[in-house]
This record gives sequence, structure tokens and C-alpha cells, in this order.
Amino acid sequence: MLKMYDIIRRKQEGCELSEEEIAFFVKGATDGSIPDYQLSALMMAIWFRGMSEEETVTLTEYMTDSGETAELSKVKGKKVDKHSTGGVGDKVSLIVGPMVAAADKGVYVPKMAGRGLGFTGGTLDKLESCKGVDTEISAERFEQIVSELGFCIAGQSKRLVPADAKLSALRDVTCTADCIPLVAASVMSKKLASGSECIVLDVKCGSGGFCRTQRDAEELARLMVRIGAKENRKTVALITDMSAPLGRAVGNSVEMIEAIRVLEGRGDEELTELCITVAANMLYSANAAASYDECVAIAEETIYNGKAKEKLADLVESLGGDRRYIYDTSLFEESNVTAMLAADRSGYITRIDALEVGKAAAVLGAGRDVIGGDIDHSAGIILNKKVGDRIEEGEALATLQGESLERAQAGMEHLFKAVTISDFPPEKTKTIIKCIGANY
Amino acid sequence: MLKMYDIIRRKQEGCELSEEEIAFFVKGATDGSIPDYQLSALMMAIWFRGMSEEETVTLTEYMTDSGETAELSKVKGKKVDKHSTGGVGDKVSLIVGPMVAAADKGVYVPKMAGRGLGFTGGTLDKLESCKGVDTEISAERFEQIVSELGFCIAGQSKRLVPADAKLSALRDVTCTADCIPLVAASVMSKKLASGSECIVLDVKCGSGGFCRTQRDAEELARLMVRIGAKENRKTVALITDMSAPLGRAVGNSVEMIEAIRVLEGRGDEELTELCITVAANMLYSANAAASYDECVAIAEETIYNGKAKEKLADLVESLGGDRRYIYDTSLFEESNVTAMLAADRSGYITRIDALEVGKAAAVLGAGRDVIGGDIDHSAGIILNKKVGDRIEEGEALATLQGESLERAQAGMEHLFKAVTISDFPPEKTKTIIKCIGANY
Repeated sequence: MLKMYDIIRRKQEGCELSEEEIAFFVKGATDGSIPDYQLSALMMAIWFRGMSEEETVTLTEYMTDSGETAELSKVKGKKVDKHSTGGVGDKVSLIVGPMVAAADKGVYVPKMAGRGLGFTGGTLDKLESCKGVDTEISAERFEQIVSELGFCIAGQSKRLVPADAKLSALRDVTCTADCIPLVAASVMSKKLASGSECIVLDVKCGSGGFCRTQRDAEELARLMVRIGAKENRKTVALITDMSAPLGRAVGNSVEMIEAIRVLEGRGDEELTELCITVAANMLYSANAAASYDECVAIAEETIYNGKAKEKLADLVESLGGDRRYIYDTSLFEESNVTAMLAADRSGYITRIDALEVGKAAAVLGAGRDVIGGDIDHSAGIILNKKVGDRIEEGEALATLQGESLERAQAGMEHLFKAVTISDFPPEKTKTIIKCIGANY
Repeated sequence: MLKMYDIIRRKQEGCELSEEEIAFFVKGATDGSIPDYQLSALMMAIWFRGMSEEETVTLTEYMTDSGETAELSKVKGKKVDKHSTGGVGDKVSLIVGPMVAAADKGVYVPKMAGRGLGFTGGTLDKLESCKGVDTEISAERFEQIVSELGFCIAGQSKRLVPADAKLSALRDVTCTADCIPLVAASVMSKKLASGSECIVLDVKCGSGGFCRTQRDAEELARLMVRIGAKENRKTVALITDMSAPLGRAVGNSVEMIEAIRVLEGRGDEELTELCITVAANMLYSANAAASYDECVAIAEETIYNGKAKEKLADLVESLGGDRRYIYDTSLFEESNVTAMLAADRSGYITRIDALEVGKAAAVLGAGRDVIGGDIDHSAGIILNKKVGDRIEEGEALATLQGESLERAQAGMEHLFKAVTISDFPPEKTKTIIKCIGANY
């Protein structure tokens, strides 16, 4: 009979775990028969010893099967999922979901998103900045919205991948969240369980992302693409820069507003480029057009013809919210305090550190530090300048929003640390560093 | 403000923990404010990264101070403690306590012992094989017995080193029991808290001991001796062989009976030699005589004059038991089934593996596998032959005792695996491999 003690010991000694052993601990994590302290000890041993690709695939499969899997049988078309490893200012899901749906090529986006702990709320929290929106809907309602609109963004059913819910929560508090095979199994099990045929991954790389180095990001990306392939899912992974925040807004309602701006064709240039690339990859992997370039054109068109924006408004309405928010952003709740950070010297902005900007957003109240905690939807940061911009002493660098002067002050301190101004402009960096698994 | 998360992270990255960080997690382990899953994650990170000597000393000090410390102010004389890292057939405490007390040199042995999980019961369980003995006594009664008899063996007060109780229980189930700095801190914190001025350590080495290799045993021994020195305790560590069981009996009542035989001067030769060495070291470290050799002579004398045996009977009586057991071992409860393992060939016994013999004792029912579980005092093994002995095919190798034939059968299988018989006699091995920290 298998014992958790022996499984921990084997991993501790650097052995490869057998399928039986992996099945045993995934089952024990799911049904609660293995205590947390043994699970966390095993996670830490895996952090040190790693896992082979075979182990990771096996782990992903057993996690996927630990609960229900979404059928979405009412959705008559190709289903494409998208996942980002998370970063500061990442509002891409809110933009690409509507774009792919608006393309009207029979490609559906059933996007289950999270809240999580972090510097800002998750995609669900950003969406809920629109009054009335409730993303906690039933699986039936989710399927219905996907069918009707071509996409939906809502909370993940608790019946899907319960093993991941357990292990991820434990990893978050025991310093094992940053273990590449465990991340790959966590992400891919959720994607496999949610039933899409194609998966586009956005692996963030840099101070504000999960992977700090490009090497780690590539390792994670390749591993997830290989897992996807083994499970017969067309999987593409973009590696994108997260040394600076994505776009100009970091928070909840401010990010929602920025998403609307992109859908209006007047958003931040790099953010728009990334969204078009992600949407085009989603369309192309679902065979929406004969070539990738055609998919790019289709994605762009959804912005110019205003259809993607309409799709976002439709989603807000379907989730019980007020669609007018999408057309009149002055409706979003305003924060009590607005403060401006001015440049303390003239020069070129060579660095806006994503991690420090994230910390600034957190102290402003945009995130939560305990599960289920409250967040301030109106708190956040708008960057008036970006890396590479010229700035003069005293000119506005960023605007901070929060419920109190105290929070604004604390946010200011982090933001100040985030920015470097130098005499010479920095080298240009690319937002999209690499694409892994694509066949165009 | 310190956070457990950051402490785990720093150790994970291989940093040395600060005094403040160590104090924080010891306090959190003691008062329950840090959850088990974070403690076990930290223990695993320490397993991989180790601890510096300074960290280990600091950990020992904070663990020692996590609860009460024994004062023993009524005991008017030098107090000497003895600790073994545990092995198969280790009944040394039951023998040396009476010996040192019987020496009547003003040296007191306040020995707090455990039950623990293992192949057989702990020293307390062995003692409780004598009808009526109850080792769960108050601190006051403990002190009184030490004063009156010169020694006492009883359960450790729960008010002593609660941090160790917590961490050791967790380590036992998360594969971090075998981490040298954590073992050193655990052992030494208990020894420091029990208030003796001198400490004699018996570090077991071999398949049935905590340290499998002599290198590990020496590392642990040296570390504990250095911790003792820093805390102004005269500390000596013997490194002793645990590749084969100690003596001839493995179990509870059988070990108690073997202890009596040693005190009668007709015990196993190696076991007797080890007991005299341990007792002499205890006496010498407490300055009972001018030379170590004199202490050896004093220790031997307590056997020949029968006084040590009398002391053991006094203890049994003081703990509520029937002292006649010490004089008439036929009083010990007998097991239902007695089975004999015969040699399957003639030759020399070259190996009796301590670990396998331990497993045999466990399946016979001599140990417990859950805290507070029952044990069968009468279950156990008596080895008729030892390593180096000549044996003929069909001759009795060992006798097994258990409550059922089934258990005897299972024990037999392990025991059979434990023994190797060859054509040529093995090289002679030493029971006492090394002594560290002694100044004679």
C-alpha cells in the first residue's frame, strides 16, 4: 500500500515518481485524506528536485481528472482558451475575448478566470468594476452566454480541478508557487478541464511576471506546449515582456477603462499590438482563416468596426451589469484621492519596474492579500509616461488613485522607486519576445 | 514585521536565518500561530539547505526557552543526563541510570525519556513491562524520586520544550526527521531544558540507527558537543555501532529482562561493555573520581555488588510497580505464541541487520505506529546467536514472541532477511566506535 511518507521520501531523494504515486497524492489532495503538512512538504521537495516531463504530464492528467470537466456541448464551434501567467496591468483577456467573438468566424472563447491574490484584482474583479456585474454564474449560464455571444469570461466552477484549487492555495503560502513543473501542471490541468480544443498561452517574463528570466519563461512555455500536444490540444505560447507594466493602467476600473480604449482603437500601442497578436493566434489555431496574417487583419478589423467593443458591452449586460459603462467611462466609481507623481529631474525614462508598480497598486488598495478579501475597484495607477519617453522635471509621471491620502502616500513611495530617469534614452525592448509552438 | 512566507523563502534560497527569524518561527510553532503546512515547508527547506552552526545554536536556545525548564533545586549534587539517538535493542538507559545512582558518588541522573514511534516501545514502555509501573508522574514526584534514589526515569513534562514537541511530531511525518541540525537542536534543547550540568550522548550509527554512516554520526555528535559547550554543559558523545541490534533482546519486556541480566553481571558482553562505558563517562564528567579508569571501576563495581540491580527495583517500586519483577523475571507476562527461527545452512553469521530486526519486532506488535497507540509488552525477539557466531543448519538462530501465529510468521520473514550466514567468519567490529568531546 502506498504511503505519503514514502512518496515524499522518494522525491526528496531525487527519484522520479511513478504514475501510481502521483495518482495517490492527487487523490489525497482532492479528498482531503492527505494532510496539508505532508502536501506542502512534498511540494517543497518538488521545488528542490523538479519533475521530469513525464511526471509533469502525468500530474497534469490526474489533476485534470480530479473533478468534473466542462462539456460545452451546446457550443457549436471551435473553442479556444487563453491563459496568462499573470503580470502587472494585464487586461488582455478583457480585450481578446470580445475580439475573437466579434470576428464571427465560429470560434468560441469560454474563458474561466480567477481572482487570486495579487497586486490588483484578477480579470473577474476588473470586470466587476462595472456596476451590477456578477461573474459567479452557473455552468449552464456560462455555456449559454458562450453560445450566444461567442465568448464569456466568468469564475471557474469549483467542480473543475479541485486538486489544483487545493495545491495552488497551499503553494501560494509555502513559497512553492514558482516551481515550473507545478505551474505547468496547474495551468494546463485547468485548461484541459475547461474543454477547449486550442490554447493560447501568454507567459510573462520580467520583474512583474511569474518568470523573472527569459530562460525560465521559455522552459515553462515549452513544457506547457508539449503537455498540450500530448493531450491533443493545439497549444501556442507567447513569451512577453513584463519588466514594465503592460499598458498604462494598473488597478481594476482603470484597467477596464484601458481595455475599452484599446477596443476603441485608441489604446496604448504595445498593449494593442499584444492583444491583436493573441487574438490572431487564437483565431489561427482554430483555423478561422488560411493564414496567420489574415487572422491579424480579422482581429484588427474587430476594433475598427466597433464590434469587439459591442461584444464587451454584451458580456457586461449578460452578467447582470450596466452596458452603458462601456460607452461612458465616467460612470465608473471614482476614488476619494487622486495624487500626481512628478519627475524629479529631466531626462529619458529608462525603467518603470513592474514589480514596484504592482506593490504601489497593492498599497493603494487595488489587490487583496487574503482569499475573499475586499478590494477597492477604483484604486489604481495611470502611467502618463512609459519607458523610452522624454520627461521634464516637474512633469506628471503618473497619477495615483486611492481611498485615502495615506494610501496615496504609500503608493507614491513604491512608484518613486519603480522609475529611473537617465540622460540617454534606453534601448528599445520588444513586448512580444518569442512565440513557441506556432506553425506559421 | 516578519512573515513566515519570507522566512521560508530565505531558507529556500540558501540564506542563513537571523536570530529574529528563528525566534519568530519557534514562537509560532509553540503558540500555534504558524500553520503546520508552513512549518513543514520550512523544515523541508532546511533539510535541503541545512543550517549553520550559529543558526543551530540559536534554534536550540529558542526551543529550550519555548517552555518551562526543570529546576531540580531539591537535588543536591551534580546532575548528569544521558541520551541515545535511538536504535534497535537499546536498553542502555535502564542499566546506566541504576549504575550511576548505585555508585553513590553524589551524581544524580534525572532521565526524562520518551515513548515515540518505532520498532519497539521507548524506554518508558520497557519499564512499564513491570506490572504497576506508571511513568507519567508529576515534576514534583520526579524530583523527589531523583533525590531519594539518585536517579529517575520517567515521562517528559509537556511543559518542557513545547516547540520541540510540535516540530518533532511534524518532522516525523514529513521525512525531515533525519536532518542533522534539526536533530541536534531537538536533542540538545530537551537536554538543556531538563537542567543537567553534564550530558553523555550515545549517537547510533548503522542500519538500525538514526545515522546510517559514520560520517553523519560524527557530524551530529560534534555539533551536539559544540552546542553543549556553548551552553556551558560538559558534553561527551559516544559513537556506537547500530548495524546489528544492541544485545540479544529486541522488544519491551524482553529488553527489560536483558537489562536485569546485565545488572546481574551475566548480560551480553558488548551491551555490558557499552553500559559500563556510558556510566563511566557520566560519572567522570560529573567529577565522581580523579580518572576515567577509576570511573570504569566504580561502574563495574555497582554490578558486582548488586547495588545497581537494587536501584532498578527501587525505581520500579517508586513508580508504583512490583519490585519482585526485577528478582523473578518469570513474572513478566508471556506471549501467546513463541516461534523459533532455525538456520537454513551451517556457517558463520556475518550479518544481523538491525533495521530488519526492528521491522520484525514491529510486525510482532512490539512498537506503535500511531501516537498513543497500544503496544504488546510481551512481543519481541531474542537472538540466540550474534554476528561472528558459528551456527549449524537447523540450529536455533532466534526466538520470536507474539500474540498470534500470523504475527510470528510476519516477524519470521523479516528476521530471515536480516541474517546472512557465510562460510567464513566476519571481521570483528567494535561496538564503541569513537568518543567525541571527552578529555581523558
